[in-house]
Amino acid sequence: MLKEAIYHQSDSTYSYPLDEKTLCIKLRTKKDDLKRVILCYGDRYEPVPRVTMFEKEMNKVFTDDLFDYYEIQISPSFNRICYYFKLEDEKETIYYAQQRFYKEPPEDRNRYFIFAYICRGDLYKAHSWWRDSIFYQIFVDRFNKEELDEAWFDEPTNKRMFGGNLRGIIDRLDYIEELGVNAIYLTPIFESPSCHKYDTIDYYDIDKSFGNKNIFKELVEKCHKRGIRVILDAVFNHTSSEFFAFKDAMKKGKKSKYFDWYFINEDGTYEMFGQSKNMPKLNTTNDEVKKYLLNIAKYWIEEFDIDGWRLDVANEIDHKFWREFREAVKSVKEDAIIIGEVWDGAESYLRGDQYDSSMNYPFMHAALEVFARGNMKLKELDAYMQNLYARYRRDIRYNLLNLIDSHDTARFLYECKNDKEKLKLAAFYMFTTIGIPMIFYGDEAGLSGANDPHCRITMDFQNIDKELFSFYKNLTRVRKEVKALKVGEYRKCYVDEDVYAFSRFVDDEEVLCIFSLSNKEKSFEIGLKGEYMDILNNKTVKVEGKLDIEPYGKMVLKIR
Amino acid sequence: MLKEAIYHQSDSTYSYPLDEKTLCIKLRTKKDDLKRVILCYGDRYEPVPRVTMFEKEMNKVFTDDLFDYYEIQISPSFNRICYYFKLEDEKETIYYAQQRFYKEPPEDRNRYFIFAYICRGDLYKAHSWWRDSIFYQIFVDRFNKEELDEAWFDEPTNKRMFGGNLRGIIDRLDYIEELGVNAIYLTPIFESPSCHKYDTIDYYDIDKSFGNKNIFKELVEKCHKRGIRVILDAVFNHTSSEFFAFKDAMKKGKKSKYFDWYFINEDGTYEMFGQSKNMPKLNTTNDEVKKYLLNIAKYWIEEFDIDGWRLDVANEIDHKFWREFREAVKSVKEDAIIIGEVWDGAESYLRGDQYDSSMNYPFMHAALEVFARGNMKLKELDAYMQNLYARYRRDIRYNLLNLIDSHDTARFLYECKNDKEKLKLAAFYMFTTIGIPMIFYGDEAGLSGANDPHCRITMDFQNIDKELFSFYKNLTRVRKEVKALKVGEYRKCYVDEDVYAFSRFVDDEEVLCIFSLSNKEKSFEIGLKGEYMDILNNKTVKVEGKLDIEPYGKMVLKIR
Repeated sequence: MLKEAIYHQSDSTYSYPLDEKTLCIKLRTKKDDLKRVILCYGDRYEPVPRVTMFEKEMNKVFTDDLFDYYEIQISPSFNRICYYFKLEDEKETIYYAQQRFYKEPPEDRNRYFIFAYICRGDLYKAHSWWRDSIFYQIFVDRFNKEELDEAWFDEPTNKRMFGGNLRGIIDRLDYIEELGVNAIYLTPIFESPSCHKYDTIDYYDIDKSFGNKNIFKELVEKCHKRGIRVILDAVFNHTSSEFFAFKDAMKKGKKSKYFDWYFINEDGTYEMFGQSKNMPKLNTTNDEVKKYLLNIAKYWIEEFDIDGWRLDVANEIDHKFWREFREAVKSVKEDAIIIGEVWDGAESYLRGDQYDSSMNYPFMHAALEVFARGNMKLKELDAYMQNLYARYRRDIRYNLLNLIDSHDTARFLYECKNDKEKLKLAAFYMFTTIGIPMIFYGDEAGLSGANDPHCRITMDFQNIDKELFSFYKNLTRVRKEVKALKVGEYRKCYVDEDVYAFSRFVDDEEVLCIFSLSNKEKSFEIGLKGEYMDILNNKTVKVEGKLDIEPYGKMVLKIR
Repeated sequence: MLKEAIYHQSDSTYSYPLDEKTLCIKLRTKKDDLKRVILCYGDRYEPVPRVTMFEKEMNKVFTDDLFDYYEIQISPSFNRICYYFKLEDEKETIYYAQQRFYKEPPEDRNRYFIFAYICRGDLYKAHSWWRDSIFYQIFVDRFNKEELDEAWFDEPTNKRMFGGNLRGIIDRLDYIEELGVNAIYLTPIFESPSCHKYDTIDYYDIDKSFGNKNIFKELVEKCHKRGIRVILDAVFNHTSSEFFAFKDAMKKGKKSKYFDWYFINEDGTYEMFGQSKNMPKLNTTNDEVKKYLLNIAKYWIEEFDIDGWRLDVANEIDHKFWREFREAVKSVKEDAIIIGEVWDGAESYLRGDQYDSSMNYPFMHAALEVFARGNMKLKELDAYMQNLYARYRRDIRYNLLNLIDSHDTARFLYECKNDKEKLKLAAFYMFTTIGIPMIFYGDEAGLSGANDPHCRITMDFQNIDKELFSFYKNLTRVRKEVKALKVGEYRKCYVDEDVYAFSRFVDDEEVLCIFSLSNKEKSFEIGLKGEYMDILNNKTVKVEGKLDIEPYGKMVLKIR
């Protein structure tokens, strides 16, 4: 047994409460190293010399390149828990407790791992609408406006405003609803001099070129009537250099009561976002700044009933601020979703005390490598994604906001050199794997384009790619129909150079998701016999141990 | 190279800022597996296609049974950092970035580990007085009172009050100062029906049997004049069942405005500490409770200038409460110390956002096994302690409050079957290893006794064990003189069945701490030549490669 591979940490993403009665425990071991892992747990306050230990076998839930991950949920009648692991391989049984290994379990309960107490104050609650969602990201200036002129179809530039607006979105709610998404995330809509509006001048007003508060209210109400949630972009890392507080601070210097709202040096330089002088960084440790921003977070929920916030440059702001942000948001709308922009692993933000979700750019990276660039094998994709899932709490991994592109990247179709089959495969995987799928506006319509400004191209509703649109529409239908796709476990079933098959399953339902990267028909051994419904293609498939899959085929077989 | 052993996690105890300019990075590898570990880091916003990477070799700072731990501090001119590790063994060089291994470093900076931004709001500050401290724990009812009668010397019982009080402590400040401690931690002193006072009736008053607020004020002032800090016990997990709010809640049921202050069930039962009905558990998620408790935390600092809080049953209260507690305490006294009672690993509380320190019961466990019971070899002690240090941030590991016994355990001397040599060896190790030493009142005087009530025996100032007292006095002297003992690095130099030698070193100072468990004279190879001052015994020691150590010998050799 490779002891160096074994990892557990109490009161972490390896050991946490799912509710007041239930604890989820995870253990990492070397891949394919163990035969059985048993969690042994007892009441650490039991008034006897040696604690009575209960035993429960753990399930292997993920496997990556190097490790297996075992998980178990327990709901004991006591809530002050001590525990250790019984690890069995072919040769030996050893016990693992508090970072040490034993041949026999130690008698002293102080040597065990403990979960001291399931505290109500630390509980995390995920809401079902999050997992039932399919997001649609809209870059407002480029989506739609009332009357399109020829200029609308010009090539985008970094600066030019095209006049897309909120009324334009309202006018296309039929389209959005038909596509089947049920949550829209709007890039910033508050007053700002730029086309992207990530440099805010007034957090309390809608940018005039986008509309006004009445129109926004109408948009939210009309979305809600259709069962569509609305998420806004919280740009709290920095303001525009035209923001009142920054102007005052620059003008009056240390005499300004806003001087400490920013990080301004003696020589007049200041901290900013990246190298953008027009985006001075806010000092979120200043109490006034905090109060100001948290009030904004609450205002748009209380007055306009928005359903959550996407947090811009989320990882350059302190954890303390985000904890208070969470408190503020949840105090006015308990099921509002908080999604951080984090481009790498978001472990330190997704412990349950800060965000509910993060933009899953690590997913995008894998999708690009596998489907667009062909640099990553399906076997690697499997290991990479299982590693990613295993990093997070089980009540958070389903919230991850999966994406294959955004306003900050090239269009996925562009990365595929406009090969639609590749885009469709990536989208299929996004809709069937763990996490919430998000479509960047226009991907479903065939929009293509390199990095900013090209990816921020305008929609052309007269020339929607009908095949792509109905493909996406079918994906949203399946996703909404199948509970196992939203909250099911994940298990690899088959993988080779071209074909990947994985199961998603909950108690009463299991589907087999399969796709092929090959341009030829393929046949592979899947260990199933019988007739199964392919929910994606709405036809019955006969399986006789072997399964045939057509070029670039995709299936969702209902096997239970 | 054993990849399964390699561990790093960004924005965790493996990667954290020490100040606004300095990042500390840690990496774990298999023990003795690598030749060299290089941290490669760059500015993740550098406006070039491929980031310029700086290289710095990491230091192996700890080694336990299975792993080596490498650490490095960097202070780059940029504060948005991307990094990866270059790992070299005898056969190969590989790169480790974002949980993946590479033969060549990836070009894409989004594949690197990142430290997104050193946020001022997340900075942690340790204060030097903490590390310069030697604590003395006083169980107030049993330490001293004005006029001792015969009954004072009776065997302690669980319930009986002996009348020890604050005036008694004031009367013995000469003794305390002579011993050389410079911080006292008092078990609870607020109004309470018990002798231990862990069941509070009034958090705003001193128990009458202990004195009153004037006497307490006098105690703090007199301590401060002598350079002695005063820490109180915060019993916030539960109150006495005689506490006004609980009485009201039990009397009026749901009509009581204090009903939600506790966890009271329909049948009148309630959550309590352990199985103690007289200690109902407080609901620290209730805003009123929070406000009430945080005001107490501030009150005793603001009005009486106490220097910190020791938190009772700290791990059964939510992290959210402790974060707010930290804010409250630091808002009124920035250098106040917060010490949690946690019996096992306290990782989740010692990230910098909650406690400054925890009672290091894992240290006590090792000390008992090695020195009192002989169940653990010195080699195991070395691995165990290095593992423990490696778990914490470097700015927190020096704050750990080391102890070998307390009011909740048997006296160490009792565990040694009253063999003073064993106690002295344990105390020597506690004073020379990493962490703040704490003496349980009377250990220095020869007090012995089994678990509660016997360990809570009364002091007999007429019969102080003079040899022990001067031994402890010598330890406090050395500890105060030698900076390397307070904040120095730790390195094993020699270990066998009987003898353990380790170095503590800072930039300009290094001492070699040595002890022998043997009752015979020993000689061992240490690789030093010359004459060195033994600061503990105040004599010069000649070393010729070999060093002789007397039975139960202890030395602190100044080698630099």
